[in-house]
Amino acid sequence: MLNELKNVASRINDLIVNDDFPATVEPQYLRATVMDYPSRGGKRLRPALLLWCCGLLGGNIDTALYPAMAAELFHNWTLVHDDIIDEDRMRRGQLTTHESLRLFARDTFDGGDLAADKFGQNFAILAGDIQQGWALNTILKSAQHGLSTELSLALGQRLLKLGSCQLISGEALDVEFPMRNWQNISCEEVLHMLELKTGALLRFCAEAGAAIALNTCDFERKEVKMLGDFAAAAGIAFQLRDDWLGIFGDFDKLGKEIASDLASEKPTILLLKTFENLKPELQLHLAGMLGLDEYDKDIIKQVQTLMRECGSEAYVREKAEKLTEQAKEILHQFPDNKYRSFLLELTSFLINREQ
Amino acid sequence: MLNELKNVASRINDLIVNDDFPATVEPQYLRATVMDYPSRGGKRLRPALLLWCCGLLGGNIDTALYPAMAAELFHNWTLVHDDIIDEDRMRRGQLTTHESLRLFARDTFDGGDLAADKFGQNFAILAGDIQQGWALNTILKSAQHGLSTELSLALGQRLLKLGSCQLISGEALDVEFPMRNWQNISCEEVLHMLELKTGALLRFCAEAGAAIALNTCDFERKEVKMLGDFAAAAGIAFQLRDDWLGIFGDFDKLGKEIASDLASEKPTILLLKTFENLKPELQLHLAGMLGLDEYDKDIIKQVQTLMRECGSEAYVREKAEKLTEQAKEILHQFPDNKYRSFLLELTSFLINREQ
Repeated sequence: MLNELKNVASRINDLIVNDDFPATVEPQYLRATVMDYPSRGGKRLRPALLLWCCGLLGGNIDTALYPAMAAELFHNWTLVHDDIIDEDRMRRGQLTTHESLRLFARDTFDGGDLAADKFGQNFAILAGDIQQGWALNTILKSAQHGLSTELSLALGQRLLKLGSCQLISGEALDVEFPMRNWQNISCEEVLHMLELKTGALLRFCAEAGAAIALNTCDFERKEVKMLGDFAAAAGIAFQLRDDWLGIFGDFDKLGKEIASDLASEKPTILLLKTFENLKPELQLHLAGMLGLDEYDKDIIKQVQTLMRECGSEAYVREKAEKLTEQAKEILHQFPDNKYRSFLLELTSFLINREQ
Repeated sequence: MLNELKNVASRINDLIVNDDFPATVEPQYLRATVMDYPSRGGKRLRPALLLWCCGLLGGNIDTALYPAMAAELFHNWTLVHDDIIDEDRMRRGQLTTHESLRLFARDTFDGGDLAADKFGQNFAILAGDIQQGWALNTILKSAQHGLSTELSLALGQRLLKLGSCQLISGEALDVEFPMRNWQNISCEEVLHMLELKTGALLRFCAEAGAAIALNTCDFERKEVKMLGDFAAAAGIAFQLRDDWLGIFGDFDKLGKEIASDLASEKPTILLLKTFENLKPELQLHLAGMLGLDEYDKDIIKQVQTLMRECGSEAYVREKAEKLTEQAKEILHQFPDNKYRSFLLELTSFLINREQ
């Protein structure tokens, strides 16, 4: 499966690097910025999901390459705008878009630090805007690469619904949470946010792969919906595993990342559930360990003990496992072929990873 | 013509207010924000241009309504992101998107002023993102309202090329200019920026109207290109008139707006040409009148005199008139019908307006 994943990544990389949409973007360094995240590589999980769901139902995965590339581009532009919003400096070990543009401006223009800062944000907004257009253009291009115009158009509309509408709504809820009082955020709300922010685009990938294989524009069709549900369940399990690793992961391997959710007081289901289960005096003790500048093994250990003893650790672990099982059960209802094996392995891989 | 323009505006308003794309946007106040600019009204020049170019060539303008609405939505989302970039507080006499979200956050959450500020920007970025998706979804919807899937798809790709790629490149150049040294910006560069930022979407409108009337996906076809050139020329003439009015407009009518280009030291063609034509000592004198906090009639008068005497006022006025004539000449090559009259009147209206 991992070899096949590399194979997908390499085909998607080739398509992205050779696509002509950004060719006329000006100025030249904005064009380079538009190309930046999409050509940084990464696992290309979304393209693989789309292509393999297509293959699972006997489709020709070559006709699904442009939709797969579109899903990857869509994911990337949302990262560009996310990184501005979160004020993150690094993404996959390299500078974020707004940060690299800020440094470019600082070294190129005489406006001073504040102006460079603002310029970085402004140009990163525009880079993401162009990338959203690029993603949409790519899916519409499918009509010139083996798909019917009807299906290309239907896929475009579906991407807009699940991507531009639902995913961005999920991002908005995620931005809103830290502004609200912790006491007023429920686990259900966080789960709903994850379904939108993480689940919606994965759902699109699975649905698109299925729809291409079946040559249907009907996203309500049974197989299409089932695979969409599979992908959303696997995606949320992945996210819960992520939250779990953020506290219970290997401290020596993950280092600083371990405590970043605690440092930023992120309302994860794990943390909300812990507060829900703890007695008031222990709630206060936990609250005192949030938002610190530094986390050592001892503090992490204390948080871990609280979470284990109150049952929230088991709750989140079991919830993730249950979602994974649900996802696999859906796959088992489809005929056995190599793509089903890839998808089953991918699901296990995502939930069992240690980092 | 003005009555017919009102008629267009009313049909577009109805379509926008009743469209279901934003219905699932969350949270609720983000949905309201997504609806905000598009439902504020305005002249709806872009829809009118698109519909009338369709009518000019004998097309059924009812089939062009969704593309017309898409062009208007596209224009609106670019304003939302523009307003963040320019840090503007007001748009058409009401609060800008990021400003109204800032006030909402200040009154709703306990995060303080800085957090409300950041929240306003973040949510406005996301609102614009969703609106770009809405615009694209609207043009693809044309296939369910009288256009072929091929044409709907081709119009979508054309909008992405001229809108997401060219218009945003123009915006980027406009953001870059103030960071650069004045001496290094040429009139040609500013004209090129205007062609992208203002011309590209107007070109799309005219081309789309023509392509719908002729039921063609070939944007290189003679009539399509000619009407695209007409719209771009008229749009740049409009922009030059805007720059001219910014100095030579009626002070009592336009008030503060008169001097805003001087206050912000905006590198307009009018200002660049003036510097080009002036002797060094007068250049210094002009430079001293830029970027002031307050402008009274006397300073404006001095700037006007400089511009008249060095010939830059005549240069810009004549350039705008020449572009207007070019635009009208193109229209005169088409058969006479009521839509041609509307388009001719619209062109005159835009260039002769006093504010």
